[in-house]
Amino acid sequence: MGPIIGMTIGDVSGVGPEVCVKALQKQEIWEISRPLMIGDAKAIERIAKVLGVAAPVRAVASVADARFDHGILEVLQATDVDLTTIPWGQVNAEAGKASVQFIEKAIALAKSGEIAAIATAPINKEAINQAGCPYPGHTEMLAALTDTKDYAMMLVADKLRVLHVTTHVSMRRACDLITTERVLKVIRLASRAAQELGSPQPKVAVAGLNAHAGEGGLFGKEETEAITPAVEAARKEGIDTYGPLPPDTVFLRASRGQFDVAVAMYHDQGHIPVKMLGFEAGVNATVGLPIIRTSVDHGTGFGRAGQGRADESSMVEAIKLAVMMAEANKGDKTRSSLYDKQNKP
Amino acid sequence: MGPIIGMTIGDVSGVGPEVCVKALQKQEIWEISRPLMIGDAKAIERIAKVLGVAAPVRAVASVADARFDHGILEVLQATDVDLTTIPWGQVNAEAGKASVQFIEKAIALAKSGEIAAIATAPINKEAINQAGCPYPGHTEMLAALTDTKDYAMMLVADKLRVLHVTTHVSMRRACDLITTERVLKVIRLASRAAQELGSPQPKVAVAGLNAHAGEGGLFGKEETEAITPAVEAARKEGIDTYGPLPPDTVFLRASRGQFDVAVAMYHDQGHIPVKMLGFEAGVNATVGLPIIRTSVDHGTGFGRAGQGRADESSMVEAIKLAVMMAEANKGDKTRSSLYDKQNKP
Repeated sequence: MGPIIGMTIGDVSGVGPEVCVKALQKQEIWEISRPLMIGDAKAIERIAKVLGVAAPVRAVASVADARFDHGILEVLQATDVDLTTIPWGQVNAEAGKASVQFIEKAIALAKSGEIAAIATAPINKEAINQAGCPYPGHTEMLAALTDTKDYAMMLVADKLRVLHVTTHVSMRRACDLITTERVLKVIRLASRAAQELGSPQPKVAVAGLNAHAGEGGLFGKEETEAITPAVEAARKEGIDTYGPLPPDTVFLRASRGQFDVAVAMYHDQGHIPVKMLGFEAGVNATVGLPIIRTSVDHGTGFGRAGQGRADESSMVEAIKLAVMMAEANKGDKTRSSLYDKQNKP
Repeated sequence: MGPIIGMTIGDVSGVGPEVCVKALQKQEIWEISRPLMIGDAKAIERIAKVLGVAAPVRAVASVADARFDHGILEVLQATDVDLTTIPWGQVNAEAGKASVQFIEKAIALAKSGEIAAIATAPINKEAINQAGCPYPGHTEMLAALTDTKDYAMMLVADKLRVLHVTTHVSMRRACDLITTERVLKVIRLASRAAQELGSPQPKVAVAGLNAHAGEGGLFGKEETEAITPAVEAARKEGIDTYGPLPPDTVFLRASRGQFDVAVAMYHDQGHIPVKMLGFEAGVNATVGLPIIRTSVDHGTGFGRAGQGRADESSMVEAIKLAVMMAEANKGDKTRSSLYDKQNKP
């Protein structure tokens, strides 16, 4: 009997409910987990009809009420918003409000230990903003609601796991943001994330920023001035850290299992190799939280919502990753203590 | 009967002669080409002995003398330097001098049409400098000796072909170097290179510099200020150009054949996806020259020279790529005219 995975169904105007229902048709998901949708029963009924999925939808009020039966679409009812008339493929404040409620409920259940992990379907940033939610996105909301200061997004494609020091900024700004402190924080998060994926003493690879990792200062100073000091500091803390390594080969090496996790300096340095390995089935996890959260790597897909054409591969992978992290975390009664060092300075 | 490919054996202190001899043991090379080493017969005899290759070595004085027999190691003698006592794995001015002579000979033969293309084994930059050669490397030497002003290195891994706007500079300097003029030049070279690989009207993909190709200016201005104008100018010249595209997916798309060639803005943006596809058998070509030149993607490997442990895959790919380019170029009697526009302003 696998761990209970809470699947937030995301923004009901988008493909979230669809990828949840489709993922639950896969036998492999039921073999490894007890999945439970967290959302709205009516929204699931609506998409099940579109998909021609005959399984009955059953609303439950608590995790304890769930039966985890492959033949039933069980939904933990987590909103009182009426979502029956929400149009497909449009930004809608009501849908946004409900998607926030799903996440709030999931976080509460994960914190209390009623579910072992959360796998999230996509939400719409504009919709949650219209609903008065002050966070720019999913990850920031999760961090705020769990009082987490240091966190990072980890991309996963088979053996390749990548954490980023910088993400949604310009390349010039990314160069400015590469500091010893920042790199060290992400190395710590990377090491802990790899531990949660089952490596007790993980090998952490750190990429350089510049071509050839700076070629001894010839192609840039960030390696000598910021990255190398961070690697040395991490080693002093007992983290098995390697780098700064030439960016063009480090991710290939990590993907072949030579490292348990890799630290990328900027968005595309990590995203390019991950996409090269698994475009359709990318998945990510937010590391640093006191709960386990994985996510699909795609958006709400408004352009194809309600048409039955959405690909559920990423949600399947998100559930699998959540299970893997939950299993590795099983014996740990004080999981959040892992992060105390970073979050309480 | 395939085209005649001249293989310069490179620096004889390194793995160059070894990867040439090993590549010539492959039946597939003889099926598609008439390969001829350009170098020194004694150096080939020496490595053949190490490798236990029984084929006799035969020095020829001209291409016309070559018999192209799979059972014989034919070498066009292109140096009078005595290379018999050169130690393995050390920088040596005499080896450097000879390696320059091999390239000079190969260029002359390619210019006169006696060979259809050149595939080069690695040289050592320090050795050629000690020998008084004023060029920083192979590519610059080839450009100078063929009076070429605009050229670029193209990386090839199966369907993925990548040209770079910048290469061996820091990331900050790369950002500064992204100008409309520079990007446009590389788009032109990319289009012509793809034509030489057999695509009459190639689709050229241009990557952005920043995450999400700048996200409409939010993550950087280089896309709107430099790359988009270059793409528009290329379109006006009749080049089927796309971009600036999100860097994290454009190379995957190109590797799947959605584009004939991709333009990368900086070293790792292009090198990461190429390495992810084919680490052991990477190959590159210098485009923009009036002759065809392909190259292995590795160095002289001094650390393992003379031990018989070098991997010849990249040389095999370099010969195959040279054949492909030579075949596509067959009917073109005025090949160099392709580049007139760039080289004679």
